[in-house]
Amino acid sequence: MDKLDAIFAPDSIAVLGASTQKGKVGHDIFANILYGGYQGTLYPVNPKAKSILSVKCYGSITDIPDPVDLAMIILPPRLSLNAVETCIAKGVKGVVIVSAGFKEVGGEGLEIEKKIQNMCREANIRLVGPNCLGVINPAPSVSLNASFSKRMPSAGNISFISQSGALCTAVLDFAADKGFGFSKFISIGNKADVDELDLLRYYHKDPNTDVVMIYMEELSRSAEEFISEVREMTSGINPTPVIVIKSGTSDAGAAAAASHTGSLAGSDTIYDAIFEQSGIIRCHTVNELFDYAEVLASKKVPQGDRIAIVTNAGGPGIIATDMSEHSGLKLAVFSEETIKELHKYLPPTANFHNPVDVIGDAARDRYENTLATVISDPGVDSVLIILTPQSMTDAVGTAEAIVKIARSAVKPIVCAFMGVVDVSDGVGLLQKNHVPVYQFPESAARALGALYAQTRWLSRRVLPQYNIEFDKVKGEAIINECMEKGMTVLGELEGSRLLKCYGFNVLDMEIARSSEEAVRIAESIGYPVVMKIVSSQILHKSDAGGVKVGIENSSDVVATFNMIMERARAYKPDAELDGVLVQQMAKQGKEVILGVSRHPGFGHAVMFGLGGIFVELYKDVVFRMAPMGRNVVRRMIKSIKGYPILNGFRGEPKTDIETLEKNLVSLRAMVKNHPVIKELDINPLFVHKEGEGTTVADIIIKLEPVD
Amino acid sequence: MDKLDAIFAPDSIAVLGASTQKGKVGHDIFANILYGGYQGTLYPVNPKAKSILSVKCYGSITDIPDPVDLAMIILPPRLSLNAVETCIAKGVKGVVIVSAGFKEVGGEGLEIEKKIQNMCREANIRLVGPNCLGVINPAPSVSLNASFSKRMPSAGNISFISQSGALCTAVLDFAADKGFGFSKFISIGNKADVDELDLLRYYHKDPNTDVVMIYMEELSRSAEEFISEVREMTSGINPTPVIVIKSGTSDAGAAAAASHTGSLAGSDTIYDAIFEQSGIIRCHTVNELFDYAEVLASKKVPQGDRIAIVTNAGGPGIIATDMSEHSGLKLAVFSEETIKELHKYLPPTANFHNPVDVIGDAARDRYENTLATVISDPGVDSVLIILTPQSMTDAVGTAEAIVKIARSAVKPIVCAFMGVVDVSDGVGLLQKNHVPVYQFPESAARALGALYAQTRWLSRRVLPQYNIEFDKVKGEAIINECMEKGMTVLGELEGSRLLKCYGFNVLDMEIARSSEEAVRIAESIGYPVVMKIVSSQILHKSDAGGVKVGIENSSDVVATFNMIMERARAYKPDAELDGVLVQQMAKQGKEVILGVSRHPGFGHAVMFGLGGIFVELYKDVVFRMAPMGRNVVRRMIKSIKGYPILNGFRGEPKTDIETLEKNLVSLRAMVKNHPVIKELDINPLFVHKEGEGTTVADIIIKLEPVD
Repeated sequence: MDKLDAIFAPDSIAVLGASTQKGKVGHDIFANILYGGYQGTLYPVNPKAKSILSVKCYGSITDIPDPVDLAMIILPPRLSLNAVETCIAKGVKGVVIVSAGFKEVGGEGLEIEKKIQNMCREANIRLVGPNCLGVINPAPSVSLNASFSKRMPSAGNISFISQSGALCTAVLDFAADKGFGFSKFISIGNKADVDELDLLRYYHKDPNTDVVMIYMEELSRSAEEFISEVREMTSGINPTPVIVIKSGTSDAGAAAAASHTGSLAGSDTIYDAIFEQSGIIRCHTVNELFDYAEVLASKKVPQGDRIAIVTNAGGPGIIATDMSEHSGLKLAVFSEETIKELHKYLPPTANFHNPVDVIGDAARDRYENTLATVISDPGVDSVLIILTPQSMTDAVGTAEAIVKIARSAVKPIVCAFMGVVDVSDGVGLLQKNHVPVYQFPESAARALGALYAQTRWLSRRVLPQYNIEFDKVKGEAIINECMEKGMTVLGELEGSRLLKCYGFNVLDMEIARSSEEAVRIAESIGYPVVMKIVSSQILHKSDAGGVKVGIENSSDVVATFNMIMERARAYKPDAELDGVLVQQMAKQGKEVILGVSRHPGFGHAVMFGLGGIFVELYKDVVFRMAPMGRNVVRRMIKSIKGYPILNGFRGEPKTDIETLEKNLVSLRAMVKNHPVIKELDINPLFVHKEGEGTTVADIIIKLEPVD
Repeated sequence: MDKLDAIFAPDSIAVLGASTQKGKVGHDIFANILYGGYQGTLYPVNPKAKSILSVKCYGSITDIPDPVDLAMIILPPRLSLNAVETCIAKGVKGVVIVSAGFKEVGGEGLEIEKKIQNMCREANIRLVGPNCLGVINPAPSVSLNASFSKRMPSAGNISFISQSGALCTAVLDFAADKGFGFSKFISIGNKADVDELDLLRYYHKDPNTDVVMIYMEELSRSAEEFISEVREMTSGINPTPVIVIKSGTSDAGAAAAASHTGSLAGSDTIYDAIFEQSGIIRCHTVNELFDYAEVLASKKVPQGDRIAIVTNAGGPGIIATDMSEHSGLKLAVFSEETIKELHKYLPPTANFHNPVDVIGDAARDRYENTLATVISDPGVDSVLIILTPQSMTDAVGTAEAIVKIARSAVKPIVCAFMGVVDVSDGVGLLQKNHVPVYQFPESAARALGALYAQTRWLSRRVLPQYNIEFDKVKGEAIINECMEKGMTVLGELEGSRLLKCYGFNVLDMEIARSSEEAVRIAESIGYPVVMKIVSSQILHKSDAGGVKVGIENSSDVVATFNMIMERARAYKPDAELDGVLVQQMAKQGKEVILGVSRHPGFGHAVMFGLGGIFVELYKDVVFRMAPMGRNVVRRMIKSIKGYPILNGFRGEPKTDIETLEKNLVSLRAMVKNHPVIKELDINPLFVHKEGEGTTVADIIIKLEPVD
């Protein structure tokens, strides 16, 4: 038996802090459980009451003569702490603390929460909350409404996780209006113990949960742990679709014209990456959350992107076409047989091509025959039915026909029955029979688009991983050496040595302290060379006239060495000059930027994009978190708008994308091996022609020990 | 009296084709007018009936003894034609043809529609339809429901124009559910006469219309006419906000990696330009249409973008913050006095900064005091109130308090009362008092964002126009010369001559037929020069080895001439070679693309963007239609993402944006003067440093006489 069963389907519940006083939370929750038809046994606990709502009351949970599965605690922090002690003594299997005043207020509240957390952990008891709305399980065999909310939702196949209690009541209210059914419903508040990942594991195994909706404020797990597990739940033979609405300020836009990874990696960008890699669908409004849940709960997945639209009015058909295309779908092209067949049922003024217009005076039969015909066309993957109330419209009859066909159809059918009152009976019939139905065609089309995105996720291509070997030991030695010297920012010289351990092609280079040494280095590297001033006090080398490229011979090397040193002295007389870096000239290629930024709690995020203006103005970059193998990296590279530039745009040769993929995989391995790397920018990396590799042309690495 | 008064507020109506048979359109519309409480006199016309619904019936409209303002015609096309004749004879002032079977089916239907159109025009009668739902005016003094729809909406200050009849019924249905009131409601069908612009003129003057909603399928006016008039209506002292939902397939995305104006100028892009220039707000869902109408109808405009959020739950507050920022708003920073004042009313656990959390147990008083306090802060431009139903929540009381404050407030207040059932009384109270209220905080925040966009539109900066002179006569002569020669595609040589007439800085160039001539031309232009093969059979000059740049002296000119001619002969032995173009080398600058494409019915669209990959992959281009003076062009240039590149990015010098503005104004003048120009691409135009102008580096112009 799963530990969380004690939370969602306990055989017995004790309510600690149950109250006789109507309007108090301790009273209302007790009343909601009692009057909600809970199928187990319910015990109020309150030393001051004899009975509550006619039920015998106990002074302490330990006084209850029978075993107790779940303890609901509605008591202020200090009393909650004592209550948890008695619960452990009693041997409960789960605890839900509804009351607030803990971590969220800090100080003593935070202290008490930590103590309770540790106590439950040691006693091997699952804890929900504190600061939450409670738990609801509408299944008839349980019928548990242990929440603030008077309203028990209907039973269904969608489970909900909310970090916000307040949102729960609004969602329950909204769901009631939409005829929405839930399997399990929980508010997790401060997440002292049970969090989203625990619940996702539970819901994924739950035969009564087909879709999970989450309202998330922040994730409190490492991204790697979360993604690794959740992407398995959302994939495979028995996938559970997960939809999330995640709030949090849009900080990404704040850093205008930023070109380094640190300033581009806003937390919202990171969450996008986490959801994308986990196969979680992200919504931006509660409406979308419900819209997508409805279509995913119907458990039909389109095999492709070809949608057929059937409508009794032109305008809404065009709106649906628009939104379908915006949502990644294409209008299906019907076979000749389909069009011939449609001519049998539809009047000559109808439109026989997609979107099919059955004309305003269509009753049930035209809809029925048209739907049956188009859904049989092998070129159609899904169908959207639009009904606008007109004088001959038979909303109920049409709904009946759709339900009949949907029952035996493998392909998804969604409906837009427009209007609120006139079509409500038809809408009710569709809802009862789990045919997704929306008020407007654009919502229906968008939901189908989300469904098809699910298909693409489930059928994504998986290639074998690259087998790349790294020199972790040498890498660690280089880093330690720098750290010991107190270097927290590594430039090209040390950075290149480190990247070399991870298979990057770096330029040969060496620091010359004299012009003779410069000539010796240049001759050993081979001409042409680049020469750059090296001084920790001169960060903007070009401004100091400290960079010269394309130096072709020894006499120019001597002249350049002297010139660069002179200019540097003139630019900043007090700067300590380490010498001049003599560097191999990079072979040209397409410029890309690779970057890493470390995020406390989450781990490292790796960034990829085209360099220069593309990253600065167009923000054409993408982030990914671990796990980051070949497949994640392949899709990552393909996802930027500028990808065609790498893939042989306008007759140009293709670039070495495979090496680029390996570089990204290696970069991830590097920061995993050396978490002391806080930030890294390879900008630019030159990607050469296919088969010719890549070259690191500039690099900066910041080190900072992890707390 | 406006001619359209006869449509919206007639003193008397005749229904031609009124029927005794329930369920027929001719019966139902008559019944809807009659039972809708129409304040004028109603006459059924039907040669076969004595009375309809107890009202005396006439055999012909000419038999009616009294004057008739409006004729509603519900008859098949041929009978409609006869009916219109009798209406004209009777001297009606307006005609509405509800029936379908006209232009939209083609053939005879189209012919009849044209005849009716001409007859009405000659008789100076306004015609609505055919193929429409009818007209509704809920004002108590008129109370006219001349439509299919049984449902008479409540009276309000929003007017609606729909090209789709079917959408109307759904919108009426939806509006009833939302407690939405209308001023005028019309379905315009085939728009044989009355169209959107006619109605916008009428609504703009109508004292009972404060907001206009349009459902548009396509515009049937020149863009210049539409924009010129509508932008005046949406601006000025008495602006009427206009919101549109425009359907139409998203063809812009279809042309992948396109780099010429023709393929980028999809009709959707053109409509975006038209709405943008007219000050019309474009929506993509019917929900948005209602959401925006509601907030605009409340007639309060924020002075700035600083929003204050007041909530009784953290989660929804974060969601609202998110959507506010996505919608162009900023969270207000409260003054110290405000925060001090809030401490008086709120418990210590509240959040006193924006978004203000009044905590879950807030009743009416905390909301009231908090709203009164934050709205008085001079750093706040608008307020969003979020209410989630919790145990102490007083939805009605809070609504009362909000209404009270809103009544005297200049700043806009919008509400999100979450949930459907539990908060409905409060919602009803807000609606009744015209305080915009939404189900979810994201809708409320988005609507406020739309409201602020309206502020920006109303307060846009207007600079005096440029005074540029053109040589239209010479331009016309150049075009005529080319047309006479049968040239429909002008390249650099002729194109440059034409652009020169419009003040563009073009390169000196001339065709050389011999190497001696080439030297002569090069010496007169001055070195370095560019040399290019000229042959109408060789379009891809580079592929033929037919382009060489940077030629520095006469011997190189001779060698290059011979080489280019030889290569061209080898590349395409049968090609007719006109010679070699000897051209001045362009001074470098930032590359931009200017383009024009002609759209039947609409006129010319002018495109601007950064050149190369920016247009091909990032589609960072913008279109504008006439009127296109300095101000439109200035905002056009600023609107692309890559604008900073022109404006001195990362310490680079600013470019000559003023000359670029003049070029765009001139380009528009050129295509207005010479509408035969079907397509034009200046790609690239080099924009030099501030004060140094621009240079046309390549050009192609397609000519085609206008039908």
